[in-house]
Amino acid sequence: MSPADPNYEARVRASFAKQQFMATLGANLASVQPGEVWIELPFRADLTQQHGFLHAGVVTSVIDSACGYAALTLMPPDREVLSVEFKVNLLAPAKGSVFQARGRVVRAGRTLSVCTGELRVVGSEPIVAMMQATMMAVEGHD
Amino acid sequence: MSPADPNYEARVRASFAKQQFMATLGANLASVQPGEVWIELPFRADLTQQHGFLHAGVVTSVIDSACGYAALTLMPPDREVLSVEFKVNLLAPAKGSVFQARGRVVRAGRTLSVCTGELRVVGSEPIVAMMQATMMAVEGHD
Amino acid sequence: MSPADPNYEARVRASFAKQQFMATLGANLASVQPGEVWIELPFRADLTQQHGFLHAGVVTSVIDSACGYAALTLMPPDREVLSVEFKVNLLAPAKGSVFQARGRVVRAGRTLSVCTGELRVVGSEPIVAMMQATMMAVEGHD
Amino acid sequence: MSPADPNYEARVRASFAKQQFMATLGANLASVQPGEVWIELPFRADLTQQHGFLHAGVVTSVIDSACGYAALTLMPPDREVLSVEFKVNLLAPAKGSVFQARGRVVRAGRTLSVCTGELRVVGSEPIVAMMQATMMAVEGHD
Repeated sequence: MSPADPNYEARVRASFAKQQFMATLGANLASVQPGEVWIELPFRADLTQQHGFLHAGVVTSVIDSACGYAALTLMPPDREVLSVEFKVNLLAPAKGSVFQARGRVVRAGRTLSVCTGELRVVGSEPIVAMMQATMMAVEGHD
Repeated sequence: MSPADPNYEARVRASFAKQQFMATLGANLASVQPGEVWIELPFRADLTQQHGFLHAGVVTSVIDSACGYAALTLMPPDREVLSVEFKVNLLAPAKGSVFQARGRVVRAGRTLSVCTGELRVVGSEPIVAMMQATMMAVEGHD
Repeated sequence: MSPADPNYEARVRASFAKQQFMATLGANLASVQPGEVWIELPFRADLTQQHGFLHAGVVTSVIDSACGYAALTLMPPDREVLSVEFKVNLLAPAKGSVFQARGRVVRAGRTLSVCTGELRVVGSEPIVAMMQATMMAVEGHD
Repeated sequence: MSPADPNYEARVRASFAKQQFMATLGANLASVQPGEVWIELPFRADLTQQHGFLHAGVVTSVIDSACGYAALTLMPPDREVLSVEFKVNLLAPAKGSVFQARGRVVRAGRTLSVCTGELRVVGSEPIVAMMQATMMAVEGHD
């Protein structure tokens, strides 16, 4: 997939930096490619649910941002991205020391983009969670 | 709906207290009724996405916990609850000073429960986000 | 919710009549109100899955049409409706002689509408299936 | 993925043959592999929505059966499969002469299996629809 804006990476990085919640989680942008974005998240005890694994909401947060920014890489320069909806299946406990979320665009539309995302533990095969999401291009606020 | 465990509220409160991520978000358990749980979340700037509203992942986190604990109110004493999957539609920007998430059981099964959830701004009508979720009863860890 | 087109019912009925698949299923439009549509479906053995109950795809078909047309009731006269995505939970076997699907608009937007839907057996309380769906207004073809 | 029952294909074919709705649609089982099943569906005008394309419910029906049977290939001989829930994104109009649905198991659990599915037009690249689904193993009826 080819980006409509050669400056796509800087744009994604600037927007990610404004997502204060990503800093709160300790998440960082590991890779920004056209149509595909990776976010890395180290484990922290204050991100857990009752069994000591990452809370499903934390898992969702990083996959959602990865999907949203994957969609943004393919949008024109004057657009921003909003999540319309997503669906997450939790396949295994989010148990490990570093997690990687990947978001990937399946269909890039003028208004709506459809993405798939997943979260894995670094160094481990099984998928922890899968997302199927719809993202929307909106006019930029700035 | 009638609880299988008269001690359901204490059990939910004990489990919620172990979800360290709820404390990280500043969320608290506002109400625990059989089949229905409310969680309250005050706005904080460090929970926001790029436009200054609550991140979709934060919104999801509190609705997911509300749905999970709504399901737990109806489970026998030796059970704990895990999220199998959920789907969230984001209807309006999560813009306000205090938010309330409600989780409600639609069908309580022996293994799987189906819940609906939503998030609203306190003092404001429109729904910010809606969830349809599947929760699973698992054997307790303790 | 108030319709943008006083002629909403005739428009929904005309579109429904063009959905040949609804006739194939034997489904009919039972009620068309602003923001809410009901479709009725009698049981037929040729609509079943391996256990003799309605196939989940049949269940989905009538709830999807009910949700789509609920959204269409609130759209301007020059718009048509397309399903963007939906999520269905199957709560109980679709076992009975007549089924009713209801679609209801939760949020009507200029481009996207969010709906909830459900299917019940006539004369029976429990919900058979629940849907959470996103519908899109598109320019009419005619 | 390795099947728990060497006779998995015969079991899937027998169950598919009992899904009367698949015959009603004119769908057939094109391929049955461990963890992956393909269903083929020729276009027919009586399966269409208002614009003359396959109804979203038809699209869902064949992907759902493909996912369910993909899950069944990995279940022990005494189990049957039920759909718990699914989520479908509709990416492009279902316009073409022959369609292929593929269901694939991502995680095979003792009780729950998670699958992804998609529908394409034969001879055409873009995905028409994508599914993320949860299937459940239940004790056989016979």
